[in-house]
Amino acid sequence: MKFGIIANTNKDSSPATLASLCKLLKDRGHEWVLETDTSCLIENGPGIPAAQLKDHCDIIAVLGGDGTMLNASYRIGACTKPIAGINTGHLGFLTSCSEHELERLISAIENDKFTVSPHTLLTATIESTDGSQRQFTALNEVTLTRGHTSRMVSLDTRINGEVLNQYRADGLIVATPTGSTAYSLSAGGPLVAPDANIFLVTPICPHSLSNRTMVVADSSLIEVTPSEKTEETLFFNADGRDIVEVKPGSHVKIKKAAHVLPLLTISDTSFFKTVRTKLRWH
Amino acid sequence: MKFGIIANTNKDSSPATLASLCKLLKDRGHEWVLETDTSCLIENGPGIPAAQLKDHCDIIAVLGGDGTMLNASYRIGACTKPIAGINTGHLGFLTSCSEHELERLISAIENDKFTVSPHTLLTATIESTDGSQRQFTALNEVTLTRGHTSRMVSLDTRINGEVLNQYRADGLIVATPTGSTAYSLSAGGPLVAPDANIFLVTPICPHSLSNRTMVVADSSLIEVTPSEKTEETLFFNADGRDIVEVKPGSHVKIKKAAHVLPLLTISDTSFFKTVRTKLRWH
Amino acid sequence: MKFGIIANTNKDSSPATLASLCKLLKDRGHEWVLETDTSCLIENGPGIPAAQLKDHCDIIAVLGGDGTMLNASYRIGACTKPIAGINTGHLGFLTSCSEHELERLISAIENDKFTVSPHTLLTATIESTDGSQRQFTALNEVTLTRGHTSRMVSLDTRINGEVLNQYRADGLIVATPTGSTAYSLSAGGPLVAPDANIFLVTPICPHSLSNRTMVVADSSLIEVTPSEKTEETLFFNADGRDIVEVKPGSHVKIKKAAHVLPLLTISDTSFFKTVRTKLRWH
Amino acid sequence: MKFGIIANTNKDSSPATLASLCKLLKDRGHEWVLETDTSCLIENGPGIPAAQLKDHCDIIAVLGGDGTMLNASYRIGACTKPIAGINTGHLGFLTSCSEHELERLISAIENDKFTVSPHTLLTATIESTDGSQRQFTALNEVTLTRGHTSRMVSLDTRINGEVLNQYRADGLIVATPTGSTAYSLSAGGPLVAPDANIFLVTPICPHSLSNRTMVVADSSLIEVTPSEKTEETLFFNADGRDIVEVKPGSHVKIKKAAHVLPLLTISDTSFFKTVRTKLRWH
Repeated sequence: MKFGIIANTNKDSSPATLASLCKLLKDRGHEWVLETDTSCLIENGPGIPAAQLKDHCDIIAVLGGDGTMLNASYRIGACTKPIAGINTGHLGFLTSCSEHELERLISAIENDKFTVSPHTLLTATIESTDGSQRQFTALNEVTLTRGHTSRMVSLDTRINGEVLNQYRADGLIVATPTGSTAYSLSAGGPLVAPDANIFLVTPICPHSLSNRTMVVADSSLIEVTPSEKTEETLFFNADGRDIVEVKPGSHVKIKKAAHVLPLLTISDTSFFKTVRTKLRWH
Repeated sequence: MKFGIIANTNKDSSPATLASLCKLLKDRGHEWVLETDTSCLIENGPGIPAAQLKDHCDIIAVLGGDGTMLNASYRIGACTKPIAGINTGHLGFLTSCSEHELERLISAIENDKFTVSPHTLLTATIESTDGSQRQFTALNEVTLTRGHTSRMVSLDTRINGEVLNQYRADGLIVATPTGSTAYSLSAGGPLVAPDANIFLVTPICPHSLSNRTMVVADSSLIEVTPSEKTEETLFFNADGRDIVEVKPGSHVKIKKAAHVLPLLTISDTSFFKTVRTKLRWH
Repeated sequence: MKFGIIANTNKDSSPATLASLCKLLKDRGHEWVLETDTSCLIENGPGIPAAQLKDHCDIIAVLGGDGTMLNASYRIGACTKPIAGINTGHLGFLTSCSEHELERLISAIENDKFTVSPHTLLTATIESTDGSQRQFTALNEVTLTRGHTSRMVSLDTRINGEVLNQYRADGLIVATPTGSTAYSLSAGGPLVAPDANIFLVTPICPHSLSNRTMVVADSSLIEVTPSEKTEETLFFNADGRDIVEVKPGSHVKIKKAAHVLPLLTISDTSFFKTVRTKLRWH
Repeated sequence: MKFGIIANTNKDSSPATLASLCKLLKDRGHEWVLETDTSCLIENGPGIPAAQLKDHCDIIAVLGGDGTMLNASYRIGACTKPIAGINTGHLGFLTSCSEHELERLISAIENDKFTVSPHTLLTATIESTDGSQRQFTALNEVTLTRGHTSRMVSLDTRINGEVLNQYRADGLIVATPTGSTAYSLSAGGPLVAPDANIFLVTPICPHSLSNRTMVVADSSLIEVTPSEKTEETLFFNADGRDIVEVKPGSHVKIKKAAHVLPLLTISDTSFFKTVRTKLRWH
């Protein structure tokens, strides 16, 4: 089997973990290719750009934490090869195993003892008044928030063309089930089991106290427009990565992406167990 | 067309509204039958028990508010005939129109200008240690709560056989999308659009502050068991109606009911609009 | 110096800890008396009832956790002698030190290296329609809640004679700063530093979503009356201990008690540190 | 009696209301002076700068809403003359009466039928690494928040020199009782009665779910420092007015201001009633 490997190049422990993984793959008779930056960690070889990695391997392994996974999912792009996250730090929601379980992971893959859990992605399109469009993909969430010089934003929000609400708030978060454990949670949103086919629409610090997260079917088209009277600049953000100024008069359309993120899961990994541990329920 | 009619018999205005409805039906050439208690409001006729009403009509009309609808849905039982709620008081989440829109409702029905919105129901089965089983159906929610002499309950909760959490709380609510605007909301749960296929699992006053509502797919089997060490009595409740003592050692299984509640909706009725109005967002 | 000692008699480790404490006191040349039940743990002597303990010692030592402290504070009654909690389990909010710090505690007392932190108590008076009155004291909170057969209570609440709100909820909690880390917190209340002279009035599962905790000065008279239309029984509860049925027409007056609970604190004990640890902020 | 008058000069109705007030004062034999900008609304006279108004009158009248009051309190500066807010729009928390109650207000003042409610102010001092200091006063709250390019801020927070917490959040709000109904409320903070001598410390979208508002005595010194590792810029904001970039290494000290805002209150004005109305509790 052939592995494509991406590692968090900012982490001191990455070269060692990467070396262990490569040695293990070699011992087991597997092949691998390294992503360009990752390649510099241990080899002189040129490596392969992240966006092309999926074309050169059967399975993608990512070394790092949830942040690395989030970043890698973005750089890899639409992909049908299973992606296995190898956690090099704290327990994560997106990773398949810890760096101390490399053998277990490889054995599971060799013996077909894994499942592929398709994670829904969001596509957001910002349409400006000049007709231009920009498109973004997110695994966790997209947000529209006030800049630091404004006191609030006023956002007309529609679901499938129907008015949901005009939110007056610090901002609005549209999150996937995956994103339910990220920023959405800090803003008061609920947790979502991976197999619930929904999105969460959550205002940040809403002026109206009775505002709550709205759970909508993930087949919904969510449209957000700064209210007409608004002259404030606001900021769009996908997965905390792309930050884009949204001019008055713009229009943001959010829906399920055409592709999913196929995360590899090995047995004994439970979303609920990870939630209990990460949120310190016990 | 033939209507089966149930009215809230505790409401002073019911006889007048009922008379108006019957007159309108007569003028339009429709037939109707009345539920037994409803029958006593304006006729001497015997009427038909609520549970048999569906077999004697094409459409069921319920006069009252959300409480009357909740109660009627229970008394009618599994039913495929459309149910139209006629609101005689405040705006409701379950009613189709107000009592001032009777003509509009009948015209919509005559001209096939309505949709039927299938509302998911919950089935809960309480299995006792002696092997006996009791089954309940709920439109809004089922709850398991402490009695007034206990300080809390400890509830082992599983989703599809997998441990979700051992909740230490005043109780636990499992709600449908319909129930998201009822008790679940008071306990901090999110709002849910009618087409999101999920259930909400929400602890009441949890001891662990990081506990939040868990959104699960409505295909899930939710099992709740008083924790082994618990000797406290707890109480099961379906839609605030059936209140049942749950003995230590019992086991509660909650899942989607085999049938749905087919609520009639006429155009211009919007869940989001009702939410905005009822929750006073503007 | 003379110590009066109360231990949690339900805890297996109590006799050993008690013996250690007594030995240490003897070695250091101190005297002690034991509370009646505590006395049975290690001695044949008769002991002294908890309510009289304060008259026979200079300082009271309580062995157990926060629950033991809560219970002891009730049994000791109004008392000006410092009370030192010795924690025999998890870190507590009310205890002065752990059972492994007995020497440190005694040295601090011998060298006057402690402070006495006066903890505000609540007095609640239930006035019935027949003119009878019952009075209760609470260190954490008093609550008025629905019974398990009701859906909610409706409570007219006044502050210093002025209408605060008619709460429609599962119940209402009036908490001291000490109680801010207990039941009030589960119901969504804020944390309160020990030197803030306030009470917290927090509805449990309120029907109105914009209801929030109201922070009032601890000089306030808080009056709670079941709303006129209410026929439901409700239940009064002080510190989760006294549970009293409150009949329709009754009236509950809540204010600061005339006496405080003088808890002994030794250096390095910080309320904020305990909060961070107990609530797992890090 | 001599009145100093400030009006919201951006409001179309201000000239008419101002004229009514002046006519009424004239009819009743009172004198008045106008603030400079206000003066331009109806007179050619030069007017008096807001900061000097208190030296030329017995009582200050402010025409506008809560925003105008907030702004006026800042421009007037430390002041012992009673300030009466005359509401020209929605019901407010800071105003004494509506524009339709001018006669009632003047009569109350003439007959000494008013009270002066001292509203606590916050003083915040930003100390930079170069030793420079900037000082700000706030009636509602001061906030420290992330800029729109950061994901969060990490804020070391101390109360009276003791560590409260290292907050990882979108920001932190320190609010007065007056500010408890403003931004702090949107972020989840409790309501505070005007006579409770406390400040509220509330994180905005905290990463740790168990974070809650901390209520501290208003005699407390609150110190907030960006955590050492933080390189992100953050923004300080007093009453949504002054927005200041806070460089890494800076230190913010927050405490009760030496002076209060003496707001005039006439009978029948109740904080709780205003809360019930503004938050739509009924």
